[in-house]
Parts: sequence; C-alpha cells; structure tokens
Amino acid sequence: MNNMAKGLGDTIVALATAPGIGAIGVIRLSGNEAIQIADTCFFGKKLENQKSHTIHFGTIRDSKGNVIDEVLVSLFKAPKSYTKENVVEVSCHGSPYVLQRIIELFIENGARMAKPGEFTLRAFLNGQMDLSQAEAVADLIASSSETSHDLAMRQMRGGFSDRIQGLRQELIDFAALIELELDFGEEDVEFANRDDLKALIQKIQTLIRQLMDSFRLGNVLKTGVSTVIAGRPNAGKSTLLNALLNEERAIVSAIAGTTRDVIEENLNINGVQFRLVDTAGIREAQDQIESIGVEKTFEQIEQSSVLLYVFDVTTLPISEVEEDLEKLARANLPVLVIGNKIDLLGNWAMDTSKISYKTLFISAGRKENIDAVRQALYDLVIQGEIKTESTIVTNARHFDALQKSDESLSAVLTGMASGITSDFVAMDIRAALHHLGSITGEIHTDDLLDSIFSRFCIGK
Amino acid sequence: MNNMAKGLGDTIVALATAPGIGAIGVIRLSGNEAIQIADTCFFGKKLENQKSHTIHFGTIRDSKGNVIDEVLVSLFKAPKSYTKENVVEVSCHGSPYVLQRIIELFIENGARMAKPGEFTLRAFLNGQMDLSQAEAVADLIASSSETSHDLAMRQMRGGFSDRIQGLRQELIDFAALIELELDFGEEDVEFANRDDLKALIQKIQTLIRQLMDSFRLGNVLKTGVSTVIAGRPNAGKSTLLNALLNEERAIVSAIAGTTRDVIEENLNINGVQFRLVDTAGIREAQDQIESIGVEKTFEQIEQSSVLLYVFDVTTLPISEVEEDLEKLARANLPVLVIGNKIDLLGNWAMDTSKISYKTLFISAGRKENIDAVRQALYDLVIQGEIKTESTIVTNARHFDALQKSDESLSAVLTGMASGITSDFVAMDIRAALHHLGSITGEIHTDDLLDSIFSRFCIGK
Repeated sequence: MNNMAKGLGDTIVALATAPGIGAIGVIRLSGNEAIQIADTCFFGKKLENQKSHTIHFGTIRDSKGNVIDEVLVSLFKAPKSYTKENVVEVSCHGSPYVLQRIIELFIENGARMAKPGEFTLRAFLNGQMDLSQAEAVADLIASSSETSHDLAMRQMRGGFSDRIQGLRQELIDFAALIELELDFGEEDVEFANRDDLKALIQKIQTLIRQLMDSFRLGNVLKTGVSTVIAGRPNAGKSTLLNALLNEERAIVSAIAGTTRDVIEENLNINGVQFRLVDTAGIREAQDQIESIGVEKTFEQIEQSSVLLYVFDVTTLPISEVEEDLEKLARANLPVLVIGNKIDLLGNWAMDTSKISYKTLFISAGRKENIDAVRQALYDLVIQGEIKTESTIVTNARHFDALQKSDESLSAVLTGMASGITSDFVAMDIRAALHHLGSITGEIHTDDLLDSIFSRFCIGK
Repeated sequence: MNNMAKGLGDTIVALATAPGIGAIGVIRLSGNEAIQIADTCFFGKKLENQKSHTIHFGTIRDSKGNVIDEVLVSLFKAPKSYTKENVVEVSCHGSPYVLQRIIELFIENGARMAKPGEFTLRAFLNGQMDLSQAEAVADLIASSSETSHDLAMRQMRGGFSDRIQGLRQELIDFAALIELELDFGEEDVEFANRDDLKALIQKIQTLIRQLMDSFRLGNVLKTGVSTVIAGRPNAGKSTLLNALLNEERAIVSAIAGTTRDVIEENLNINGVQFRLVDTAGIREAQDQIESIGVEKTFEQIEQSSVLLYVFDVTTLPISEVEEDLEKLARANLPVLVIGNKIDLLGNWAMDTSKISYKTLFISAGRKENIDAVRQALYDLVIQGEIKTESTIVTNARHFDALQKSDESLSAVLTGMASGITSDFVAMDIRAALHHLGSITGEIHTDDLLDSIFSRFCIGK
C-alpha cells in the first residue's frame, strides 16, 4: 500500500476552508474515530447516536470545560461521505484563533493533522472515485476560467474513465486467454482469436489516439492559449493588443519599435483564456523581410499555440505578407492574419486569395472589427471541439500513459504480424494494460500517489 | 426600522468562508425565498420537501443545465437558523471561480448580495441575540489571544445582558408608577415608593459602576496591555525586553543609549497579550534624576496600562529608585520594579521596604528570574479578575452607555433629594432606561446599527 495510506483508517483533521478571517470556517475530521473524537469535545448531543447527513448545534469545549466556540456539526457516517469513512465537519466562527484551538483539541484527542490531499487520497483508495477523477478535484479548485472549470468538472464527473476501463477489461480477457495458451506450453493451441484481438487493439488505439490528439487543445485550454502577436515594426501590434484588452496597457506610439519588452496579457474570450504575447519591437537596420526573423520572435512563436500576424495595409504589399507568413508559420500552428489601419485607406481592395490563413481587416486605432478578431481567435483554437461532448485530455500524466499504451499496443500488432511467440505478445499486452490502468489508478505506486496528492492543498 | 433592515425578509447571499483557495467554500443564503432559490439551481432532491438540519448531495447547474459544481447543501428552516429565517448553506469546491459563479447564479434567481454583518443584523432584529451579543460575534472572529477570545465568548453567550435587562425591567415598573402619578396631575398621590426607588437605583448604580470599573481591564485585555519599560540609561531595558521575548530583537550593547527608537513587541503571558514598549534611550547631559523626565517617556507612560521600571542594582541606590518612581508613577498605574544585574553583585541585600510597588531582582543578561517577571506582570494586570466568572466590559460603546445611565440615575437621586416634581424625575428615569436599553439593543437607531454592523465582514 501507499506510504500516505499506511495509516488509512486513523483519523485525520484539517481546516477545509481557505485560511484567514471569514464569517465561518470549517474543520473536517475523517477516519474510524472521527465521531468519537468529535463527541469528546462537542457538547449538546451525543453525535454517535445521530443519523448521517444531519446537523447539530452545540459547543466545543476544551478539557477544562471552557467554551471554545458555539458550532454546527455536520455528520457523515461511513460509507456515505466524501472519503467513505466517518466524517465530521465542524462549522465554527471564522477566527484563525478559534480554528487553531479546535484543530489542536482534536489532535489532543487522537486525530492527526492531514497531509495535503489526504482526504481525496482516501476517497480514491476507498473507491469513491478513480485517480483521474481525484486529479480533476485539484484542477477544479485551481480553475480560473469557464473552460478550465468545465474541463475539470467533466473529468471529475467521469470523463473518459469508463471507456478506458471498458476497453481495458476486454483486453484483460484476451490477455487471460493468451496466458492460458502459455500453460499449454509446446502444444499449438490458440484460445485467443488473433483477428478479434487485432480488431480490439485497433479499436483501443483509435480511442487512445483521439484522446492524445485532444491533449494539445486540452493543455492549452487548461493553462491558457499562448498567443503570439507578430509583425513588422509599426504594424500596430501593441495597439491591437490594447484594443483586444480594451485598456491601455502597453506604451503605444506612432514611432516604430516602441515596444521594448515582451508583454503578456490575459484575455478571456467566451470563457477561454488567451495569454497574449506582444513581441519585442524588432528594430531592423533596413526594412527587409529577413529582419523579422529575429531569433526571439521565432522562439516565442515556437512556444505558442496561436500566431496572430499583423501587417500595415498602407505600407505592406500582399506579396510581402505572403513572404512573412512563409517564414513565420510552422506546421500545425493556427494562424490569424490581420490587416491593420484600414481607416487610413480610401477605397481599397486586396487580393488575399494567396494567403492560406483566415484574414481579417481592422483598424486597431479606431477599434473597428476588434470583436471579429476575438471571435476568430476563439474559433481558431476551439474549432467546435469543446462545444460537443467530446472528451478532452488535459493532464500531461494521462497523455504520457496514453502514449505508452499506444506504443505497447503497436508492439503487440507488430509482434503478431511477425509471428513472435505468445509469451512476447502477452508481455506487450501486460505493458499496455499497466499504462492504461495507471490513468484511472487501477494500477498505482506509492510514488505516483505521493506525487499526485502532494500537490493538493491541505484539507482537500 | 433600520435602513439595513428595510428589506428584511428578502433573500441575501454571501460567501461565508474566508476568500481565497481552499478545499471547500461555503455560500450562505438567508431569507424567505432562500430554499426556493436554492431549489432552482440545485439538482438532486427538492430541498423544499426536506427536513431542517439535514444535508443533501447534488449538483448546482446554471440556466443552461451546465454543472457548476457537485455540492453539499445544508438546510435550516425558520426559525431554527442563525438568522431565524430560512437558511441554505452550500458547501462547494473552494475555487474562487466556482464560488463566484454560484453566488452570481443565486443573484440571477432573486437573491441579493448581503451587506457586511447583515446575517448577524437579521439574527439581532429577529431576536436571536441581543445587540451586545451580536457585537461579540465580530469580537470573537477578530480575537487573536486566549483572553480576547474568552471575553468575546463570554459576552456572546450572554455576558451582563441578563442582569442589565432584569434591573432595567424593575426600573421600567417604577417609571410606569411615576408616569401614573403624573396622570393624576395636581393631586398629591405617590404610587411609587420613593425609598424603594432609591434602593433600586443604588442597586443599578452598583452594578453599572462595577461594569464601568471592569472596562479598563476589559479594554486592555481586548486590545493588549500596553506596557512601558522605563529606567535610566544602561539599566538593561532592552536586555530585559529580549529576555522576556526570548529573542534578540532590540540591538543590545553595553553602551548606554543604544536604543534609539521606540520598539514595540508583543508578548503573550498566559493568554493575555502585552504590548511591550522599550523607551527611547534617554541620553542625559549629566546623570541626574531630572533627565529621566524626558517628555517622550512621560508621554509613553501616560498612554500605558503598566509601567515596568528597571534599575541597575550595581549603580543606583534605592533612594534614587524611590525618587525615580515618584516622578514616573501616576495614580492607578500598576508598577513593577525590577532590580537588574544581580549577577554582578556578590553577596547583596537591599532594603526595599520604602518601595511601595512589587519589586523583583533579576539578571536580564543571564535570564535569571525572567519567569517571575512574566508572572508578576500578569498578576499585576489581572489581579485575579478574569479567573472568576466576573463580568468584564470590553466595548467602548457599552462603557459610554453605562456612564450615561449612571449620570441619569444620579440625576434621579439628586432630583428626588431636592424634591423636584415627578415629571422631572420621570424624565431622568426615561433617559437612564434609554441608555441601558441601548447596550442590549432594546433601544436602537438606524445609525447605531449601521455603525455597528458595517464593521463586520460580509457573510457574517
């Protein structure tokens, strides 16, 4: 069993609400003795005799009988609780002094301080949720935008666990048949139908690859979409950034090369967080396309999920726009092209047929067509993907496990095609089962659990 | 009725726990529609049909059906709640984003954001507690030491309210009799026995004056005991301060006049907070007693609740200690005298019979007898007063009201003694009743309630 879980069953205590002064604070106890420990300090009713999911008013008193606070106690009897253990929640006045005293009192009476994430670890170990759901609890608490919240919520409520678990079970059944073949040693029996196995593996790989594909999106949605704004000097990059943010954050002037530092700003579009990076002013000796290729800009584009290319319609011919884009764009990088300063042209028409990216014309200075830029940015990233009920992987650990599962499954297929013996096939299947199982926690190690739950806050 | 209470009955909502990220956060609804509003957003069970003091698991969903969180809802049906109204508490994941969304959702569905202290205001207006108890709720939340906590707790649990209310009721009965006399106009009737009235007033004044006397102590216990350390240069004031704090906070040296600034440090003795002020080094032209009288030191002593006078036993004869104390001490100021540097004397004996204050001999440098100083400081302030169940006034508003009551009652006695007419006596009694009633809130104005509750945090 896991290190942290060694004392499973002993009673842990922690402040469950945010630290600091509030109207109320909640202290949570979980474990075999939770109710008895609470009963020792709580005066009003014997909690032991009360029903689960009921609330009781009374006082918490120290060993000398001094009233520490008047409280409400909520009772959750095993297994009908978050941890599936006996849980007592004490809602008291939100004074750090009072909270501290009550926690100390519970510790004096046999509870111990909970480790970070230990309540959720117990929920996982007691089968309340699988590991990917437990991980989503931390994501949910940390979520700060509608999208990161929705992704965490979807994962917490099941996500792709069921499908993974179902396919894994089918694979386990095949593995059992193949292991059975091994028992027959030299005899040339074949309990597991190879065609069926191949079909199952392909089905699993299809799911796995869909999930892996969703990770790029899931990761940017969870952490924010890194968006770089690039373009020649004086194209209006900072003005566009300000127009998008609707505030004057960058120093804007009509003088080329005003922006000296990288500015990163957060922009929320329809609940998705975009981290907009205005590239450093590229002061070129001569106004040549090569000078755009300043290493820093390329570096930033390399690290970004979206490129917003801005050009000045009054000075840059479309042919040079095409050249710039050829230099800047890379495979799989969504690009939005913005022709700025349309207010400075009279009647104008531009042939954008040779630009292979969505192109919008705006006036950043006059804030014309800025909403279209917002919407286009959103569409570029989302591509309808999170509108549907499609499953999105947001967790790097899950991506890694999916990738390893995929590799093992490919090895099974290759092995079968080249006619290797059943024991090698069985080994690769076991490896795939291991990696798939690590996602939902059917397979877990102490180290894995420690590394996951130590990132939680105490009290969760 | 009070401004804040105009909407009494409408449903208010606020975050009840401390702001910030926590494992869980609690949102509180109170008002006529609290349960209906919660039912609109909560899916799992119909709360309307559930019993008071029960807890229900379910989801909070927005108007489009999107799950905002999985929550536990606690139900308190009027009048069995903090506010005596219907109260719903939603315990959700402690993500500021989730908390914000749920509060917004409740507001969309008819709740309004609570003002600071509005839940407790309602508890007061609905007769859950009197005004002095409501004030103690804020004191309790702000309490940071055992003593300030105990005082607030004692007041919250009733304090002197009952006794004030009882005596006030007796006085009301007398007032009624006197007002009755007035109805008989010119006839010389006397329904209210003047001797009994006088006896009652004296009984009330005895209580009031006890309570007023307790305010000095109550106030220092609540805010901390301001303690000034004074003495001649190089007496060892900073060394003593450090020894008491058990840390090296002040710059200590053997050179006289090292301490250049006023240093204030907090020292907790048996749960009472002492704010220790080390006086600025008094660099005197000549080593004369007059030089101690630097204005600043006197100012600090003036503002302090306790004087800790330190002298160097190796250099200062007792006669000069007496002179110093005569200059420094003032009426009603508790003084502790400390003879320092006993380690530098061999066999020694000192006649302290002429010093009228408790005197201790110590070595601050060697930390000898420091615990005795701690205990003596504590005893000096407490004088056994908070050991007992005696009532202590900690609130300046209460002190003020007691003082005004006392004045009105004295006017009643003076009036009766000088044979003024009943209508004047009745007027003074009414004034006393008004001031006594304002303590517990039987008498209150909008302004008074506004000023009291606006100092609360939102959600309480």
